[in-house]
Amino acid sequence: MGVFCLPSLHRFFSPHPLLCSSFYHPSDARFSLPKLHASLTVREKAAEADEPPPLRSPAAVDRKPLPLHDSAVIPRSLDFNAWYLDVVAKAELADYGPVRGTMVIRPYGYAIWEAIQEYLNVKFKETGHSNMYFPQFIPYSFIEKEASHVEGFSPELAVVTIGGGKELEEKLVVRPTSETIVNHMLTQWIQSYRDLPLMVNQWANVTRWELRTKPFIRTLEFLWQEGHTAHASAEEAEREALQMIDVYKKFAYEQAAIPVIAGRKSRAETFAGASRTYTIEAMMGDRKALQAGTSHNLGQNFSRAFETQFTDENGQMLHVWQTSWAISTRFVGAIIMTHGDDTGLMLPPRLAPIQVIIVPIWKKGDEKNAVLDTAASVEEVLKSAEIKVKIDDSEQRTPGWKYNFWEMKGVPLRIEIGPHDVASGSVVVIRRDVLGKVGKEFGISMEPSVLITHVKSRLEDIQSSLLQRATQFRDSHIVDVSSYEELKEAISQGKWARGPWSASDADEQKVKEETGATIRCFPFDQPKGPKTCFMTGNPAGEVAIFARSY
Amino acid sequence: MGVFCLPSLHRFFSPHPLLCSSFYHPSDARFSLPKLHASLTVREKAAEADEPPPLRSPAAVDRKPLPLHDSAVIPRSLDFNAWYLDVVAKAELADYGPVRGTMVIRPYGYAIWEAIQEYLNVKFKETGHSNMYFPQFIPYSFIEKEASHVEGFSPELAVVTIGGGKELEEKLVVRPTSETIVNHMLTQWIQSYRDLPLMVNQWANVTRWELRTKPFIRTLEFLWQEGHTAHASAEEAEREALQMIDVYKKFAYEQAAIPVIAGRKSRAETFAGASRTYTIEAMMGDRKALQAGTSHNLGQNFSRAFETQFTDENGQMLHVWQTSWAISTRFVGAIIMTHGDDTGLMLPPRLAPIQVIIVPIWKKGDEKNAVLDTAASVEEVLKSAEIKVKIDDSEQRTPGWKYNFWEMKGVPLRIEIGPHDVASGSVVVIRRDVLGKVGKEFGISMEPSVLITHVKSRLEDIQSSLLQRATQFRDSHIVDVSSYEELKEAISQGKWARGPWSASDADEQKVKEETGATIRCFPFDQPKGPKTCFMTGNPAGEVAIFARSY
Repeated sequence: MGVFCLPSLHRFFSPHPLLCSSFYHPSDARFSLPKLHASLTVREKAAEADEPPPLRSPAAVDRKPLPLHDSAVIPRSLDFNAWYLDVVAKAELADYGPVRGTMVIRPYGYAIWEAIQEYLNVKFKETGHSNMYFPQFIPYSFIEKEASHVEGFSPELAVVTIGGGKELEEKLVVRPTSETIVNHMLTQWIQSYRDLPLMVNQWANVTRWELRTKPFIRTLEFLWQEGHTAHASAEEAEREALQMIDVYKKFAYEQAAIPVIAGRKSRAETFAGASRTYTIEAMMGDRKALQAGTSHNLGQNFSRAFETQFTDENGQMLHVWQTSWAISTRFVGAIIMTHGDDTGLMLPPRLAPIQVIIVPIWKKGDEKNAVLDTAASVEEVLKSAEIKVKIDDSEQRTPGWKYNFWEMKGVPLRIEIGPHDVASGSVVVIRRDVLGKVGKEFGISMEPSVLITHVKSRLEDIQSSLLQRATQFRDSHIVDVSSYEELKEAISQGKWARGPWSASDADEQKVKEETGATIRCFPFDQPKGPKTCFMTGNPAGEVAIFARSY
Repeated sequence: MGVFCLPSLHRFFSPHPLLCSSFYHPSDARFSLPKLHASLTVREKAAEADEPPPLRSPAAVDRKPLPLHDSAVIPRSLDFNAWYLDVVAKAELADYGPVRGTMVIRPYGYAIWEAIQEYLNVKFKETGHSNMYFPQFIPYSFIEKEASHVEGFSPELAVVTIGGGKELEEKLVVRPTSETIVNHMLTQWIQSYRDLPLMVNQWANVTRWELRTKPFIRTLEFLWQEGHTAHASAEEAEREALQMIDVYKKFAYEQAAIPVIAGRKSRAETFAGASRTYTIEAMMGDRKALQAGTSHNLGQNFSRAFETQFTDENGQMLHVWQTSWAISTRFVGAIIMTHGDDTGLMLPPRLAPIQVIIVPIWKKGDEKNAVLDTAASVEEVLKSAEIKVKIDDSEQRTPGWKYNFWEMKGVPLRIEIGPHDVASGSVVVIRRDVLGKVGKEFGISMEPSVLITHVKSRLEDIQSSLLQRATQFRDSHIVDVSSYEELKEAISQGKWARGPWSASDADEQKVKEETGATIRCFPFDQPKGPKTCFMTGNPAGEVAIFARSY
């Protein structure tokens, strides 16, 4: 049965007039010119099978209706927001929940979150933190104890008022974050300096009643980890807050291939209840900034509000110094919007749930067994090297459909195995990040050690290529400004503006109102030499980065 | 500095008159007769240091006040419930949250849960399930769709009525379980038989407004995993439900060393909304039964209520057949109440967060470095073999205090290293499950391969010894009954009664009212031959097990 070149039905049913890949793959050789067809291999023809023309494939003997399933997304270059939502839906990352603003994280999206968890969980333990779990219901009165905390969070609260059929005496807040309940418990666990530092973390769901929501980026309920630590000195708390933002930064660079900029938030953007907030800021594909992780030095704000005290070595009673830090499922959104392209999702190999997709190709029935057996043995070889690999041996889809589908799903590498490859003992390896012929290598030996080395090295290539590409993108869209006019110009072009800043909170508010940009951070990485505030002309200790953001 | 024999202060401060170990360790040679003292080694004296007499240790030169921290619990044999709560508190497993009935799971307790997760998560994936995440807020109307589901759960709901400062139009239920929202989503993902089976799992928190709560066993909010699957046939769903209860059973036996009895629930005890509920029932140390995991064949109950349909191979529309299955943090309670003894917690090695605790012992300052260096190298050796090991090198505690403390915390093995051991290149290895001299082995070589083999083999011994002990305990407390009188007698003695049963739901209710016992299950493992219902005298197809339960 010739399964390899049935045209996909989405051509006929798609409601979107732009879902024609020849439109949005202009640079992809596979979709370029009809005159190339004559020289295409069987495999290349298979890859083209979904593309019009031709709508009818010569080998499509045993045609039957295929279930509709688009493997194409609205081009990113056309409409970033529509593209994002399309990728989230079509790559099966998430779906809308029944309650406005809630999100169902589907297996493929959740697997990315699991990869994030796996890495961070080890790092948290290595840096001395233990996991634990605090209840999610917080007495309303707790939230009110820390003045700026209640101001920041009270508009966003979900409140339980009925339990077991009865009106509750005290309303319960569904945690928006846990500093208050953590402090309530710490008062019971901390007596002396010997109980410090106390360093814990929890993986949990949190609820914030957001009005404008977007899958992964801002949802009513989301998943995160929240670290909470208590220390015997201000210096130790500061070191901890800095250490954890550094853990996040390394994670972003090394695992997610996202070149975040780490720095300190302005007063206006500091967490409600913190003395200092550190952040990692990522530039998305539309050049908007995304706060991708934060670490707060809470000082003694919560410990004073909750009387979290300890006896120091001299017998003196002191309030503990605290930190909290978090990364959430929002980071999945950061990955999508950093690396994705017109074709769909593009996942950094170290966080990809599937690193290699194997697509077996056969034309005649007698080829099928040999091809599938070989594919299975290649899968085994790669699995033995702890490479995350999957075979797509579905008979309901053409190879061409599968190529498009797994590219849209962002799988870093594809291996194609056809009868010719079985005979020659080699495979074809195709990179997701380099579409077209350039990313395609023929004749890679199936000999286990050769194949493993090749695949591993290609995955590393992709990992660093993604980081490099994102870094270039970031750097080419940051403008150094020395006047407010220059800032306005840069922001209006959708860029980030970096310039010396020592102006007031009111000035910061003015910039926000007039340009839509906020101070994303005072980056740790500061230019040397004296600086003059571009707003006031006064001396400035630091440069700040301004951008529009999610 | 002589740190090894400071008496623990809990002798002086303890509010509980029974906290005298000579009372509750009657069978432990260490606490038996004064005449043995003369022959005790330094190490054994150290172990005794917390015990009166003598209250004053000869070597306690540099005495200073130690923070109060009991390492002794109320004896299990004295008051099972008080013992349980004491273990939960003193072994630092959990604490009460600020809201009635909620629980904070502390790092040591959470680490047990993580070990449970780690094992089950692999098994779920091996059996074809993917993790994902559903929102916890469920529209109230969903809960009402399946008749018996709403009847079972509506008295236990926590309800959010306010969001973002406003009264909500539709009240939201904080999930007590997710069948309803899962079905709502499945209708969007399932069209044809090709989309089946759909097999997912989530690790999540759930809320049930319970009136009588107990840490781990029954709390307002708890953590669990809930598996949800949809199938194209009734047979496949039944196979899945059975497969998952078998995964749980194997987990209980092989990891937790708990000899659960697997079987089917009676109609009265079936999950609200299920066609059949399978269960694993565990016998606690007070001989009450604990339902430790359940797997439900949901039939088409939810798919009919939510119209979760698919087109089969013949083009016919059918409702999917479903299962759901769960294990929760309650299982931590099962472990405590199965294996714990008068000394405290006793953890099965395969789930113990710390499998080996190393206690270094030194008397003179010049011994300290050598002992600590050796302890560190032993730790490295064991870590290299993936044994979970920790050194307690605190100088604020005596070795004797540490022995008691880590025994109370249930660590399976203790390694003691003193100056003599450093000189001889050997260590002393002590089993938690065999207190006193019998469980103590001297002169185990530090040579890495010897030590690793020895420790691994002892951990396995403890693992199987725990299972064997619990199995004997269970079997000696199950009585076969052939009349209602015999059942009443057995239940009044606190035993489980097993007997043929084919009586009515009303009779089952009568047994419950008159004896406090319910049908725990119709065990899969059934005696052969014809049976006569002990209640009615009618033929009975199966025996049932009755017991009082948590």
